[in-house]
This record gives sequence, structure tokens and C-alpha cells, in this order.
Amino acid sequence: MKDVHALPPTDRGFRLLEVGLADVRKPLTVQRRDRLVTLTATFAVAVDLPAGRKGSDLSRNAELLAEVVDETVTRPVASLESACSQIARSLLARHPSATSSRASARAVYFLARGVSPDRESLEDFVLLATARARRGEHGAVHVVREVGTEAVGLTACPCAMENVREQLTERYPLLADPSLADLPLVTHNQRNRTRLTFELEEGSEVEADRMIEAIEAAQSSPTYAILKRGDEARVVVDAHRHPRFVEDVLRSLLASLGARFPDLADSVYVRAETVSEESIHKYNVVASHAATLGELRANSNP
Amino acid sequence: MKDVHALPPTDRGFRLLEVGLADVRKPLTVQRRDRLVTLTATFAVAVDLPAGRKGSDLSRNAELLAEVVDETVTRPVASLESACSQIARSLLARHPSATSSRASARAVYFLARGVSPDRESLEDFVLLATARARRGEHGAVHVVREVGTEAVGLTACPCAMENVREQLTERYPLLADPSLADLPLVTHNQRNRTRLTFELEEGSEVEADRMIEAIEAAQSSPTYAILKRGDEARVVVDAHRHPRFVEDVLRSLLASLGARFPDLADSVYVRAETVSEESIHKYNVVASHAATLGELRANSNP
Amino acid sequence: MKDVHALPPTDRGFRLLEVGLADVRKPLTVQRRDRLVTLTATFAVAVDLPAGRKGSDLSRNAELLAEVVDETVTRPVASLESACSQIARSLLARHPSATSSRASARAVYFLARGVSPDRESLEDFVLLATARARRGEHGAVHVVREVGTEAVGLTACPCAMENVREQLTERYPLLADPSLADLPLVTHNQRNRTRLTFELEEGSEVEADRMIEAIEAAQSSPTYAILKRGDEARVVVDAHRHPRFVEDVLRSLLASLGARFPDLADSVYVRAETVSEESIHKYNVVASHAATLGELRANSNP
Amino acid sequence: MKDVHALPPTDRGFRLLEVGLADVRKPLTVQRRDRLVTLTATFAVAVDLPAGRKGSDLSRNAELLAEVVDETVTRPVASLESACSQIARSLLARHPSATSSRASARAVYFLARGVSPDRESLEDFVLLATARARRGEHGAVHVVREVGTEAVGLTACPCAMENVREQLTERYPLLADPSLADLPLVTHNQRNRTRLTFELEEGSEVEADRMIEAIEAAQSSPTYAILKRGDEARVVVDAHRHPRFVEDVLRSLLASLGARFPDLADSVYVRAETVSEESIHKYNVVASHAATLGELRANSNP
Repeated sequence: MKDVHALPPTDRGFRLLEVGLADVRKPLTVQRRDRLVTLTATFAVAVDLPAGRKGSDLSRNAELLAEVVDETVTRPVASLESACSQIARSLLARHPSATSSRASARAVYFLARGVSPDRESLEDFVLLATARARRGEHGAVHVVREVGTEAVGLTACPCAMENVREQLTERYPLLADPSLADLPLVTHNQRNRTRLTFELEEGSEVEADRMIEAIEAAQSSPTYAILKRGDEARVVVDAHRHPRFVEDVLRSLLASLGARFPDLADSVYVRAETVSEESIHKYNVVASHAATLGELRANSNP
Repeated sequence: MKDVHALPPTDRGFRLLEVGLADVRKPLTVQRRDRLVTLTATFAVAVDLPAGRKGSDLSRNAELLAEVVDETVTRPVASLESACSQIARSLLARHPSATSSRASARAVYFLARGVSPDRESLEDFVLLATARARRGEHGAVHVVREVGTEAVGLTACPCAMENVREQLTERYPLLADPSLADLPLVTHNQRNRTRLTFELEEGSEVEADRMIEAIEAAQSSPTYAILKRGDEARVVVDAHRHPRFVEDVLRSLLASLGARFPDLADSVYVRAETVSEESIHKYNVVASHAATLGELRANSNP
Repeated sequence: MKDVHALPPTDRGFRLLEVGLADVRKPLTVQRRDRLVTLTATFAVAVDLPAGRKGSDLSRNAELLAEVVDETVTRPVASLESACSQIARSLLARHPSATSSRASARAVYFLARGVSPDRESLEDFVLLATARARRGEHGAVHVVREVGTEAVGLTACPCAMENVREQLTERYPLLADPSLADLPLVTHNQRNRTRLTFELEEGSEVEADRMIEAIEAAQSSPTYAILKRGDEARVVVDAHRHPRFVEDVLRSLLASLGARFPDLADSVYVRAETVSEESIHKYNVVASHAATLGELRANSNP
Repeated sequence: MKDVHALPPTDRGFRLLEVGLADVRKPLTVQRRDRLVTLTATFAVAVDLPAGRKGSDLSRNAELLAEVVDETVTRPVASLESACSQIARSLLARHPSATSSRASARAVYFLARGVSPDRESLEDFVLLATARARRGEHGAVHVVREVGTEAVGLTACPCAMENVREQLTERYPLLADPSLADLPLVTHNQRNRTRLTFELEEGSEVEADRMIEAIEAAQSSPTYAILKRGDEARVVVDAHRHPRFVEDVLRSLLASLGARFPDLADSVYVRAETVSEESIHKYNVVASHAATLGELRANSNP
């Protein structure tokens, strides 16, 4: 049968940076410390295409995904990112003319959360992973991985709270009483979605659960599925005692990473983005940053 | 050329309720009282298909949309719903074997909003319209229309505020002072999206802008694009003086309609739905209702 | 603590048809005949709200979801729809003043598919379920369930193929040779997404896998993740030997249900919708129908 | 009133790369050569934030968007990208402590298309624009712009067609007749979405309509809203005479740019991405590339 993919390109050939599959949904079984977890993951995989070749022959990618991912039912992988590493390496093995490959995945992920042990329930977060493999000399393959998480929390605006204090004190002079100095006052709150990503050398590991904890600690408060009346009031007051702009959420998160992840090298590249779905506006407010962990450590250790 | 659509169906023929096009994007020019507005509208159109016919011949629908919608550039229509009426009627004319038709459309729509005249800006809302035509006796065509709007606003939770009051009063005894009895206290706020739809006989008109005003009045507060510091505090305090569950938003909206739209008949069918994108939870909270305007008037006029 | 939900409504009270939670993501463990499956499901739950009560107290719904769904990790349910039934019943138990409840869920679902056993891989489909409970006399609760599936397949347009035949025969007279009479000719193909839903009395069971098979049989061809070169050509030719409009897909599906599901009663209500993401247009083409299984049987059994 | 934004940050201060607004919907009036066009555009705007400042004071961004965008009703801009340039410059003017800014926008855009003049209708495309401003020495501001377009078209797979030829020729020996050598044979088609972006110095202009033409020429065929029967067959045959992988679409597009845009400098940076919504698979197939126009010219001029 004629191999149309292996023909020279019709148009004068460019090497193309990426050719692949996207939006491939698969179940992935992951072995966590204490339990098996099945993720509904969405994969994208790609390789580069040399100038002399018409097509990438993508059926190999679909086969490979079936081999690596479908078989986790019987042989679970350690993590979403280790599945991506394995796929990125296999892509290079199956595409001998490719020099680089990428495997990305995204999945909803559940962790138990609760204001107290009897209020725990499974809450949803997002896991993200990307592995990029590059063919080096003598058949060596070099893999870099990104591991990301997203967590939804609550923020309370510090600016409106200050201005409310001024306005309400005119109307309610008693608010000026020293005993009410730290009384949290009304402001606007919002659903905040924050994403944190580490770019690591293969071999360096990072626990997604701890990344999620870092995000939650940077928001005014985590959010919870189950809040009985007293709980709800306590979460509200706690969030209003920690009012934060998106700028504050981002800096608080970035400042905490050096100490929270002491095992990670200074060369680890960090990306963070936070989105506030404003309750007081129809649009969203966002902040983002990217730096090495070394740069963040230098700024956050006085 | 063979007309494959007009062949008898391969499988034993069922009459099918709806066959048509969806996700057809078109610019639609509308003549408002004082200005021309160009909407980027998304249309769906359909007719029923008799049992004896294989295909509906959908190219007629695309032609018709081009004729009716593209030509509003030079001959603007009065509203999104009048465009839908015209399309629904034309669908029946072009599909002689059809007995019913439907034309639906959705578009982002802009209105000036501001806490004061010098803070005005164009804010985004959503317009929805559907026209359903039915062939009656002697060539008569009967059309029923739905006109809908969506508006985003702000809500503050009344329950958490009450419980916060109890908890904070223990810590701040001065809060029990009568002069602070109506001091708004912290609670959680959220972005609220509410949709209102009227189902009307053709000929009965309703102004979308007034539907949007009805929704905004039912939320704890409208939201605004431009809020300088003092404004923001005033909006926050105002919203917290009108704390509302989704249940309250919905009832307040429904209760207001009879008086706000005195010209509409009791037989007008009303649908309303409100979604609160909770700041304190990862999930949304929703409420919905459907009733005739007559039923709503009976309940809301003491 | 004050129960704000139990207060009378501020606005004159309407009974509200539905108040609840939406977009609640949870992992659900399902015991299939031969294996455990973990779905990432998205739930919506609601109850009605009597006229005399201000709020529905939605924290009960979140608790209930945690109890029913989170615990399937250790006690798997039989299906997505049985989870919904259990939730709908529990909603009525937890909301004594409610008279009706609804629990809906949606999840991506995987089945092995392949043109041959050595080409099998897990492909993604969608499961849908809704249970509606209604309080009857003497504490009886009546539950009706909807079970739905969605499957993506391939369609080839029969109309363009006929017209291509006429046009190409002018250019290639040999096409008129009787030996080429059934040669499949070029037309446009598209990704087709079809949804089938059954509304059943509780107690009546239907297997989602067989619903998916019914949809796939009605499309021009199923689609597959893994297609090596020869396979791809065979699938293409097979699809072009079964060219189908959306009208044909829908009728073929509806006509097959009576015989495919002989155990289901004539009173079972069927909804079906098919969307063709046209390759030759920027818009989609759709067809939908709703009927009882009895009506479909009457039409499809000559 | 206290300026909370101007306070020093609570956490040790990092400079943040971007703080801003996203998902701001606005109507934008653009003066095209021959007509006024109103776009429903979605904007995102951001500036960097110096280490010593707590908040960016985003209300200035909302004010600025209202001034620049809302006023295009009376003073139309030349293009989406020129609106972005103006906003990016104004952002720097309003945020004296910022050193860089970005304004991005996206809008659906309509052009007349048809297989013949009497079949023309308005079809939807996408416009994208980004302007990045950077403060230089002596108050100079340097702006770089990206201008992008997306167009949906049709592709036919060349590989399946070749393999179909082999398989069908066994069954239909007449297909080997030399007179049928260029008979287009069945394969799978798909909806293809291709995006092209140029990164230009301010002052260098590029016409979006011509970028869209470049994309359409690289696909197997454009798609059309109105296709009467004979047209549809002609488009199908034409597309099958130009079968193309995503790799071919991308290379064909890239190879054409040097000659199509002779006025653009070699330093212009080009990004292109093409997505094929496979009819024969449930997943998508993608290809992407990035290069300077100089590199593309070197490769495409033999």
C-alpha cells in the first residue's frame, strides 16, 4: 500500500514545529500513595515534522495512546505527568524522523476537603501536565515536564473594605470605637481560580496535593461544598480577615513556594495565574507571573 | 438533477419534529428608538418533515437567512424577535410540506450603565428570541414568540449575614448597640446571572431594555464596569442592605412583572431562571420558575 | 442560630418550581457487569420550594451528594441513573416541605471499540441521567428516570453524492458503465453527534452500551481512534456505501428501537437529537424528534 | 480616601508581569474601506506592577476602555488592532509606574462569500489583535502588534484517497482505465479551522481580508453557507481534487505568505495553527508552526 505520509511534500517543504492529535479523551488510572484514582483525562500529543516528509502518520499516535493509557487499567502510572513523560518518549521512538515531541494532559481531580472532619467531601481541582522530549546525541532523549494544578477559592477585596469603613463610620460613629478596630467590614467577594505550574527536569518530583494546598493558602479562604450555618459564617469572617486583591493572591503564592518546596532546585521555572470572577463587575480580573524558583526565593527570603 | 431530498425515506418514514440549521452566525442590524445597533447574532432555524419525504432540503434555510438577515444592513429590523418572526414565516413559505417552523437567535447586547452620568459605559447583556410558526386553516399562519434577556448582577447572602452577626457580636459586644442594628455585616457575595423570558402572541410587544431593568432591580445590586473608589464602597453597602438568596431574586423578579408590564395579557407565559456563581462554593446555585403572568399577578397583588 | 431559610419570604411568596445546586463535580464509582468504572460526573440537584418558605437550605443538598456519591468509592452503584434515583429520593427525605425533586448527571464514558480486535482502544461517549421524584399519597414517592447516551460517528451526504455522479459522468463517461453502478462517489462527510434518551419508570432498566450501539448503527459509520491505512480506506468506503442525511440517521435510529429494546414498554418516552458538524458549511445541521416507543413501533413494523 | 492600591504589598513585593481585566465585552465600530462595521469584541488589558506597589488600580482600565472603545460609535477606529494600539498606549499613560502594557481583542467578523455572485452571503470569520507597549527612554513608547484571523474551510484526506483507490480497483477493475486516472475518489473530509497571526511593528499594516483569503486558498476548499445542489457537487469535487493533510494546509499557507504580502518585512513573525475536526475520529488533528517571514521566503522561493 502506498505510504502517502512518507512522500515529499507538495509545497516546498518546511520543517513544521508540531503535528499531532488533540482532544483525545481517555481514562487514566493513577496509583496515589494510598489509593487508585481513575481520571478522565484529555490528551494532546505532537511531534515535529522534517522538511522532506509530507505527513506525520498520526495513526501511530493513536496506537501509542491506547497502549500507554488504556493499559493503566491493569498497570497504573504514578501520576498524570509520568504518563505524559512515557508518551513523549514513545512518540520519539515511533516517529524516527522527529526530533522533538510533546504530550499534554488535563484532568479534573478530587481531594477531600472540609471545615471539620465531619464536614468532609470530595472537591474538584484540576491537574495539568506536559512532557517535552528532545532527541540529543547518541540516542539520548531529554525530557522536561510541566506539572500544574488549579484550585478555586474565595477572595475578599481589601480596597472596598477600607472605603466602606470610611463611609460607614460617618453613618455609624460607634465604628470608630477602638474595640471595633479589627471588625471585618463588608466588601465584595469573588470566586477565584488560581493556576500554578512548575517546569521540572525529569526525575524531580512534585506532589500535586501540596501545590493545591499552596494555592488555597494564598486565597482569602478555600471554598467548601458542605457548610452548615455556623461554618459558613466562620468561613466568611475568616475570608474577610484576609482580604486580597488578585495581586496579593499571586504574590502570596509566589512568596510561599521557596519554603514550601525546599527540595526543588532554583532552576525550576514557575508560572502562576489567578483569575477573579468579580461579583461587582461583569468582567474578570487577572494577574500572572513567571520566574525561576531561585528568583522567587531571592525575593521572598528577607 | 435528481432531487434526493424529495425521495421517500429509506427507513420507514416517521414525521420528524424538527430538521434545520444551528450555530449560524450573522450580523443583524436593528433599528432602536434612537439609534442603529448591529448585533452579532447566532441563529437556529428548523421545520418539521413529513413522513413521506427523505430530506428537508436545508439549502433553502441558508438562502432565506441570507435574504432576511444580510439585508438588514440596508433595511434594519425592529428587534431580534421580529427578525425571528419573519424567518419563521418565510420558512413555512419555502417548505410547502412543512406544518411548523422555528427560528431562534441569541446575541450579546449593550446598554449604557453607570452609578452616575459621568461613570457611564456600555455593559453587556444577552438577548434571546424564538418564533414558532404553525400552519393553520386556509393558509393562515400562527406565530408565537419568546423574548428573553439575561443580566449579570450581584447578590449578597442573607443567611450568612445573620449568622455572622451572631458570631461577631460575641467577639464585639458593641455590635449589640441599637445604633448598629442596621449595620450591614460581612457575608458572601456572588456574580448572579438571571434570565427572563416572555412567550407572547405576535403583535404583543415588549421592550428588552425594560426586561433587563426588571432583572437588575431584583438582584442585590446591578454591577458596573466603572467604579471609582467611593462608588465601589457605595455599591457594596447597597448590595449588603439588600441581601438575597437566589430564591429571593427569583420571587422579587416574578412579583414585579405584573406591575412593570401592565400592557401584557394575563395569558403571557413567563419563564425565569437565576444562577448564582457562588464565591464560597465551587458549584453554582440555581432557581427557576414558569407561570402565566396572570398567576403571577394573582400572587403578587395582595 | 436563626434559621433564615425557614423565614417567610420577603416578597409575597410564590411556590418555586426548582431551587438547587448545579455544576457539582464528583467522582462516581459504578459496578458494571465485569468491572468497576470511575466516572467524573457533573451533578445538578433541585427541589421545589413552598410559598411560605424563604430559602431551600441548600447545604442539605451538598451533604446528601457527599453521602451518596462520595461513598460509592466503597459501595459502588449500579449506574449513573440509579445514583440519580437514590439522590432524588433522598432529596425529598431531607426537604420535608418539598413535593418534587430532580437529580441530573452527565459523565464521559469509555467503551472499547475497534475495526478489529487488535485495533481496539477506549473511545469516549457521554452518559446522561435524570431522576424526578414526586411525593404521592401516604408517603409514597414516585420516580421517573431518563437515561441518555451520546455517540460521535461519521456521516456521508447522499444528496451531494448523487449530484457528483451526474457531474462526473459527463467528464468521465466510463462511470456510466454498469460495472461501476454501485461505485461510491465523493461527497462531503461530517462528524455526527447523536443523543438518545429514554424516559422510564423506575424498575425498568436499559443498558447504556446497547443505546450507544443503536446510535452507531444509525450513522453512516462509527468512528475509531486507531485506523491503520487499510482500515481507514475500508471505513471510508463503508461509510460512503451508507450515505445518510441527519434525517436518515434519526429515522434509522428511531425505527430500530422497537426491535432493539423488546423489553421496554410502549409507554417509554423517547427523545433523539442528531447534530452534523458539516464539513462543507460553517454551521451545523440538526434534527430532533420525540415520541413514545409505542408510536415508533407502530411506524416501524410494517 | 485611603489609596489601598498604592500601599506597599503585604507579602514581600515581587514585580508582577501582568495585572488586568479579561473578558470585557464591548461594541467596537470600525471604518472599513467602504463601510462601517460594528464588532462585538472581547477585550483583555493588562500592565505590569512594580514591586513596591500593592495594587494596580484596575478601575483606570475600565475607564480607559469606555473612553477608547465606547467612543468609536461616534469616532470609528481603522481596525481592531489600531484600537488595541491606542489602548496599550493609554494604559501606560494612566499607569505611570507600569513599564509595559498589553491590549488584546477577539471578535467575530463577517465577509461576503459565495460560489457565484447570486449565491453570496455573509460568512463568519474571527479577528484577533494584540498590542504590547513598552516604555523606552525619554518617554518613548514602543508598540508591537499581532494581527490574526481564523477561517473555517474543508479538507479531504489524501492518504485515505490513495488507499481507497487501491482497494476499490480490486473490486472495480475499470477504475484502472487511464481515462479514470484523475477521477477523485472517496476519502474522509473534515471541518478545518486555521489561524494565522502576524507580529508587526506599529506602522506596518496588514489587511485582515487578505489574511483570510490566504487561509482559504490553503484549505482543500472554502466552505459556503448557500450551496444549491449543483454547487455542492462542484465544491465537493473541487475539494477532492485538492486533498490535504493538516500538514499540507499549514505548509501551503506558509509557503504562500512571502508572495501574498510583499510589503511586509522579513522580520515579521508569523504563527499559524490548523485544526482538523476529523470526521473519521472523535479527536482533532492539529499542526502548528512559527517562523519569520524571512525564513518562510527563503524556503518558499526556489
